[in-house]
Amino acid sequence: MTYCVGMRLDRGLVFMSDTRTNGGVDNISTFCKMHSWEVPGERVLTLMSAGNLATTQAVVSLLEERGKAPSDRAPSILEQPSMFQVARTVAQTLRDVISQHREGGQQAQAFHATLILGGQIADGPMRLFLIYPEGNFIEAGEDTPFFQIGETKYGRPILVRSYKKDMSFEQAVKLLLVSFDSTIKANLSVGLPLDLQLYEEGTLHLGLRRRFDAEDPFYTTISQGWGEALTNALDSLPDITL
Amino acid sequence: MTYCVGMRLDRGLVFMSDTRTNGGVDNISTFCKMHSWEVPGERVLTLMSAGNLATTQAVVSLLEERGKAPSDRAPSILEQPSMFQVARTVAQTLRDVISQHREGGQQAQAFHATLILGGQIADGPMRLFLIYPEGNFIEAGEDTPFFQIGETKYGRPILVRSYKKDMSFEQAVKLLLVSFDSTIKANLSVGLPLDLQLYEEGTLHLGLRRRFDAEDPFYTTISQGWGEALTNALDSLPDITL
Repeated sequence: MTYCVGMRLDRGLVFMSDTRTNGGVDNISTFCKMHSWEVPGERVLTLMSAGNLATTQAVVSLLEERGKAPSDRAPSILEQPSMFQVARTVAQTLRDVISQHREGGQQAQAFHATLILGGQIADGPMRLFLIYPEGNFIEAGEDTPFFQIGETKYGRPILVRSYKKDMSFEQAVKLLLVSFDSTIKANLSVGLPLDLQLYEEGTLHLGLRRRFDAEDPFYTTISQGWGEALTNALDSLPDITL
Repeated sequence: MTYCVGMRLDRGLVFMSDTRTNGGVDNISTFCKMHSWEVPGERVLTLMSAGNLATTQAVVSLLEERGKAPSDRAPSILEQPSMFQVARTVAQTLRDVISQHREGGQQAQAFHATLILGGQIADGPMRLFLIYPEGNFIEAGEDTPFFQIGETKYGRPILVRSYKKDMSFEQAVKLLLVSFDSTIKANLSVGLPLDLQLYEEGTLHLGLRRRFDAEDPFYTTISQGWGEALTNALDSLPDITL
């Protein structure tokens, strides 16, 4: 499993992903599921993936090859004029990879992956997409300002309740750490360390990239403090008379 | 879907269930998923169910028939000497019903149901069981003091974080309402009203039974207040410096 969240704020985009991959509880590894590309001052792209690791690594490799030798294989996500075009290329690449792997005769489901793509190109708007294994995609907007992929349920209630589009990056990261901590506590297949990527709208430069591991003092403070904070929150609600 | 929680406290047992059943989002109904039996001063039993409604209703009907005409069909859950024996009868009844329905050739999965059974008999201990469709069961203990069935994920983090075995019934009901509210907000197939049943250890009489509907003042207070309480809880955690 996996847990990734891409979030759209007034200020910019926030991406967080875990790093655990597993083929059974006795076969776990750490892989980065977050990839960013930057043409400074021109475009910034961040991609996160959940699902079959071979599929998502193949997608990223294909996108990188296209980026490195643009004359060789067009279209390149580093050349396309809009986020929409980039999303189409990424989605098409994903669908192609799944369809190739499927040719061996295995069930399609086994090779599935879902992606979150966000970024900004030149004077176009900052955009955030959720890309399905079928190669189609949807965009985040006012009503659905964040996307989750992977093990989405445990960490969702806190996001639904506490997300505000005018949050600061600091508040958003705190919110995401709580959401990830709830998920990590409930599902062994989601695990530390966590990768964070920020993007401030209009800058066209990658923002802060940071990794939170089990020893990270901020992560441990959040993880240990949240139980007490929740209990206090419960206590702050009016008592029931049964 | 469904959401039910059975919780073991020092003081007794708390049961809460939603009432929505659905065969698709355009075909929803309200059914009580919580059944209690009492022989005052001698035994108290509460059963909650998640899964195929025909299966769970058949199980309850069979158990009730056995209760009403004990000479006709033994063993009766109103006569057996221990909670363990009652759990075995309920589990066997569940397995029998699923196996009968399956004979038509449909997939077994379609008829599955999972049950939570709790109660106390005479001078035996108060016990709480989770009964699987296969007809086997596990018991709640110090390490796993509550069971969830149905749509368990959204409402789990708050239970894991804030459950304490020495809670009062009032605190436990508040905690459960928050857990149910988070689930209802996230999954359309879990819905109001909610049924509550309390049992105080050693009394051998059913405790309070109460239904919370959408107009219930306490439920609406919890539901509306929880967003703010969560946000305050987040704010109470130390700020991150990025």
